[in-house]
Amino acid sequence: MTARRGWFITLEGPEGCGKTTQFELLAQWFRERGDDVLTTIEPGGEPVAETIRRMLLHDDDPLTARTELLLYLAARAQHVERVILPAVESGAVVICARFSDSTLAYQGYARGLDIEFIRRANDFATAGLAPDLTLLIDCSVELGLERQQMRNRMEAESLEFHRKVRHGFLQLAKEEPDRIKVIDGAADIETVRRSIIAAVEGCVGK
Amino acid sequence: MTARRGWFITLEGPEGCGKTTQFELLAQWFRERGDDVLTTIEPGGEPVAETIRRMLLHDDDPLTARTELLLYLAARAQHVERVILPAVESGAVVICARFSDSTLAYQGYARGLDIEFIRRANDFATAGLAPDLTLLIDCSVELGLERQQMRNRMEAESLEFHRKVRHGFLQLAKEEPDRIKVIDGAADIETVRRSIIAAVEGCVGK
Repeated sequence: MTARRGWFITLEGPEGCGKTTQFELLAQWFRERGDDVLTTIEPGGEPVAETIRRMLLHDDDPLTARTELLLYLAARAQHVERVILPAVESGAVVICARFSDSTLAYQGYARGLDIEFIRRANDFATAGLAPDLTLLIDCSVELGLERQQMRNRMEAESLEFHRKVRHGFLQLAKEEPDRIKVIDGAADIETVRRSIIAAVEGCVGK
Repeated sequence: MTARRGWFITLEGPEGCGKTTQFELLAQWFRERGDDVLTTIEPGGEPVAETIRRMLLHDDDPLTARTELLLYLAARAQHVERVILPAVESGAVVICARFSDSTLAYQGYARGLDIEFIRRANDFATAGLAPDLTLLIDCSVELGLERQQMRNRMEAESLEFHRKVRHGFLQLAKEEPDRIKVIDGAADIETVRRSIIAAVEGCVGK
C-alpha cells in the first residue's frame, strides 16, 4: 500500500521579502487544516547539508563562484534524498524556504554562471523533484534591504547584485507561471498571508 | 609579458596501482630536469577542498551518491581555480594524483551516475582545464587490493565495484588515446617508472 503523496511547496524571493514570517504562517495554516507539515530551510535541513551550510555562510576561506554553486547543489542532493522526498512520499506537506530557483537567481542571474548548466545540475541534484508550487514573494531591493536594516551597509555593487537576483526570480516566474506564483511582498503581513493562502488553495484545494 | 605555460599531468588508476610511489618518482624526474614542480592530490590541495575531503573520506554521516559526486566537483573547482591553474599559468609542472577521470570511473562507471552529466559537470568545475597528459596506471583489481593488504576485507560486491572502476578507466583511455596513456602497473617499480618517463617525454620532450 502506498501512502498518499504529500505536497512540496517552496518559498522564494530576494532578501527581506518576508519569507521567514510567511513560512511560519503558511505552516500554521496547513497544521490547522490537519496536515502533517515539515518546514525546512536551504542550505541545510540535514546533518551533511548543515556542514555544507557552515562552509557556505560562515567559512573564512573564500569560495570561488563555481565551488559555491556546487556546494549548494551538494547540500540540496542530500536534503532531497534524505529529508524532502521521504516526507513528501509519506504524505506530508513539505514547506522549504529557498530551493532550486534561488540557485538560478543568485548563482545564475546575479553571479553570471551558466544558467543552462545550473538547470541541468539542479535536475541532477534533486533527482528531478520539482516543487508542486513555488511562492515567489517579490519586493523591491530597497524595501527588502531596508527591512533587514542592511541598506546602509550595502555598496552600489551589492545593490546591483540584488537587483539581478530579483530580475532573475521574476524571469523564472514568467517562464513557469503554473508553478511559480508571484506574491506582492510590499504589502502588510496579513495581506501577504492572504495572497499566499489564495495561491496555495489554488494548488492543494481548500 | 606572459610566462611560458607549464604542464598539467594527472596520475590515475585503481586502488593499489602504484600512483603514490610513481607520483613522487615523476616529480623527482621533473625537478632533476630543472622544472618548478607542484605535486597535489585530489580531493584536497587547498583549505576549502581539504574540508570537503574530510567530509568525503572521514565523515560519519553517510553521503548520497549524488552528494558525493557534487562534493568531489566542488573540491575540484576550488583546487583548479586557486592552485592548479595559477601554477600552470606561472610555468610550473603540476602533477595531480586523481582528477576528472577518477570521478568518471568511480562515480560514473562504478556507481552508475549519469556519465554525460559528470562530463558536463567536470567541464564546469574545471572551467574547461583538461590535463595535457594523463598516466593511467593499470593493474588487476586483485593485485591492487593485495598490495593494499585489503583483499580479505573486500566483499564480493566491493570487488565487483573495483572491477567497474578499472573497466571505466580503460574505457576512458580508449576514447582519448592521445591524452591518456595506459601504463602496465603490474611490473616492478623501476619498469613502471621507465614506462611513465617514456610517456612523459613523448608529451613534454626530453
